[in-house]
Amino acid sequence: MSVSAMKKFENFSNWFDDLLLKARIVDNRFPVKGFLIYMEHGAYILDEIKKLLEAELEKAGHKKMYFPLVTSEELFGKEAEHIKGFSKEVFVINQGPGEQKLIVRPTSETIMYPMFKLWIRSHADLPLKVYQSVNVYRCETKATRALYRVREIPWNEAHTVHESPSEAEKQVKEAMEIYQSVLKSLGISYLILKRPDFDKFAGAVYSIAFDAWNPDGKVNQVATIHNLGRNFARAYEIEFEKKDGSRGTPHQTCYGFGFSRVLAAIIAQHGDDHGLVLPPTVAPTQIVIIPILFKGQEKQMHEYSVKIKDMLSPKWRVVLDDREDITPGEKFYQWELLGAPIRIEVGPREVVESSVTIARRDTLERITVRLNDLINEVARLMDAIASDLLEKSWKTLRALISDAKNVEEVKKVLRNRGIARVEWCGRIECAEKLKEEAKGEIRGERYDIAEAPVGNCAICGEKAKSVVYVARAY
Amino acid sequence: MSVSAMKKFENFSNWFDDLLLKARIVDNRFPVKGFLIYMEHGAYILDEIKKLLEAELEKAGHKKMYFPLVTSEELFGKEAEHIKGFSKEVFVINQGPGEQKLIVRPTSETIMYPMFKLWIRSHADLPLKVYQSVNVYRCETKATRALYRVREIPWNEAHTVHESPSEAEKQVKEAMEIYQSVLKSLGISYLILKRPDFDKFAGAVYSIAFDAWNPDGKVNQVATIHNLGRNFARAYEIEFEKKDGSRGTPHQTCYGFGFSRVLAAIIAQHGDDHGLVLPPTVAPTQIVIIPILFKGQEKQMHEYSVKIKDMLSPKWRVVLDDREDITPGEKFYQWELLGAPIRIEVGPREVVESSVTIARRDTLERITVRLNDLINEVARLMDAIASDLLEKSWKTLRALISDAKNVEEVKKVLRNRGIARVEWCGRIECAEKLKEEAKGEIRGERYDIAEAPVGNCAICGEKAKSVVYVARAY
Repeated sequence: MSVSAMKKFENFSNWFDDLLLKARIVDNRFPVKGFLIYMEHGAYILDEIKKLLEAELEKAGHKKMYFPLVTSEELFGKEAEHIKGFSKEVFVINQGPGEQKLIVRPTSETIMYPMFKLWIRSHADLPLKVYQSVNVYRCETKATRALYRVREIPWNEAHTVHESPSEAEKQVKEAMEIYQSVLKSLGISYLILKRPDFDKFAGAVYSIAFDAWNPDGKVNQVATIHNLGRNFARAYEIEFEKKDGSRGTPHQTCYGFGFSRVLAAIIAQHGDDHGLVLPPTVAPTQIVIIPILFKGQEKQMHEYSVKIKDMLSPKWRVVLDDREDITPGEKFYQWELLGAPIRIEVGPREVVESSVTIARRDTLERITVRLNDLINEVARLMDAIASDLLEKSWKTLRALISDAKNVEEVKKVLRNRGIARVEWCGRIECAEKLKEEAKGEIRGERYDIAEAPVGNCAICGEKAKSVVYVARAY
Repeated sequence: MSVSAMKKFENFSNWFDDLLLKARIVDNRFPVKGFLIYMEHGAYILDEIKKLLEAELEKAGHKKMYFPLVTSEELFGKEAEHIKGFSKEVFVINQGPGEQKLIVRPTSETIMYPMFKLWIRSHADLPLKVYQSVNVYRCETKATRALYRVREIPWNEAHTVHESPSEAEKQVKEAMEIYQSVLKSLGISYLILKRPDFDKFAGAVYSIAFDAWNPDGKVNQVATIHNLGRNFARAYEIEFEKKDGSRGTPHQTCYGFGFSRVLAAIIAQHGDDHGLVLPPTVAPTQIVIIPILFKGQEKQMHEYSVKIKDMLSPKWRVVLDDREDITPGEKFYQWELLGAPIRIEVGPREVVESSVTIARRDTLERITVRLNDLINEVARLMDAIASDLLEKSWKTLRALISDAKNVEEVKKVLRNRGIARVEWCGRIECAEKLKEEAKGEIRGERYDIAEAPVGNCAICGEKAKSVVYVARAY
């Protein structure tokens, strides 16, 4: 089947919503707008993504802490740009008479940094690197969309404080590498873009973002990294004693990784007409064993299946599906929907030959393997599935990107659910015109590699200052 | 040192608050009442307790899901007793015009059960057993108290649905055993009490609770289990098709395990004048290695310490504290404060003898062990520490309980920070009188064992109907 003929490219919304409920990822029927129930598979995958990311953060010396859900109006208001950016989308709790109003965190700068002020005394306390995996809340005015655009957002946020601007700069790079490493293990591809100034995080000096491709052509921002400079440190009066005894204001960074959007990217980038295709790292069930029972051989087949399960269980998450009330065909259908990376079929022939038949979920290819080679072969296949998913995803992303020389060409690229690569003069007027006419947003220039413009702005024809990527976005 | 001479028994509040901040468990200085920052050690221990509990819940067939933070006013109001019990202590979010008010969960019945109604069709869907580890929010009007009485409460809640009352009854027992098993691995002792009717969960048929002892004599309710009967199922219209084809209303249970209160119990029951005493299961650092450096032998000592670390790291969480700017004595002091179960000292004598000196945090005893025996000896000590902490905690609890024949005797027991065992007629008037005069609450009768009354009510002198435990409480 060619990629373009797949249901997810033809009618993404239907394909996605249908799959979410059927595969027990998310139930979107709770009667409060923008709030989801993560059912057992959704909850499982969220937790696995979280573990992968937290392990990387710990390795890089971040400390896990938990901060409150709420901040006070006073604390919330300290950084002028920040409050301007978020004030319209926060949930507010009105406490009883005599008690202050509480702001539910849309992100935790205004909660953490007053504590940083208390904790940081001298250069010996720096760098400070903390993180938490929690929900944040944003009362989005746009239409909500399960996993992509919700009001309760499960994410990880890390916040760091440094002595010098160069250390903050280095920290941005470290964060980028951490996110790259996690997304790689999930097989997800993306563009790393430095957002234009008009689209940076409220209060930041600059912001970079990871935009993952999506089958409907609307890019999916899965993570962001911000260099805050000294804006927040000044607002929250964070100071430290330098080595020479003088007082200094530190430099800060913060970065967030959206678990629900990464979950969406896993489903959207890898899924196919049969359902989920999960990378082995996060699949709740990595291997399902399905005995093809024949009358009179049930006991023998069952024992053989248990033997295989016992061989594989020390290394992988294995389910032996020995339900008797449904057919093997129905089981194949269900487990393909759930995206288990490897299916093992055991029939009478396999018992006689001391072999098993292995089916890969991603390619649907089947091979027969002798029992002696089983462990090695499964290990090899798991690696192959992970690297093939990754490669296929990057290939798709590359195919989605097209150069566009003018607004008409941008329109055409976006109509085909692509991402347009455009030269831009840097003026906000041109960005607005592009949004107006082509419905595409300037998402920014590449941060991980340098791309120099060679011609003129695709919108106004003046000399271009940067090469930027234009797409519709969630 | 005798138990009664310990600082935590003499001035619990000061001892506890001081330790929380010094051991980097919690910072209680955030300027919103009842909301804490869990610093690295507090966050670590919370997560470990969570893992222990979730593993037990999974083993018993519970599924993890995540439900929204908020419910609507309409959903919140469906069960009459429940709303009566909680309406005064919920946080309310006022959304913009045209949108409904949102209630922040004080517990999640009103959020989960509308979904259960959608998910449950027939007996084949039962039992349904789900859980989540999240924060709940209660706007307590009483004075807040770090970990014990907070407005943001990290906990685990499990909710189950069953065909018959006997299955619900069995589920209550299963929940009890799960909580017993987790608390045992943390060395915590408690009374399992069936709460009197006037103190049961709002909407429940009956409630049982785990009251852990506390050095100040105020018992610490760490977990509760509720048999909900069909009260909520009726209110939320949960029905199922029985095997015989007729319609039935299922029976429900729910149970909650308070992570912050369990963390408080670990600190309060095991801690001593030197600081935390952590059970090995949850200690962020299980073993600290401290080299006692002598001039000229630094390299040799360091290599020997690294060797020991490499031996122990595969099995335990080990830190080699080779900081050079502080003395071994200061390190001893700091690690005793942090409660690391085992300290290993390495001096010139140990290098020569191929031995180490091991100090137990709980007893402060020191022994010398040959390197050949190190792994076995550490394993033995870890087990000994865990079982000795548990035994000591139960012994303390038993010593705190005294029979009281009348109100005066109850007063005397409570004055000595004890728990009074009292015979009671069952009338609420007597409970109120006891609270009024002795400041003690009737916490309920034993649920795990049967205790029959033999005499008269300690308050009114009428014939007693049950043996109950009376204490002050958080």
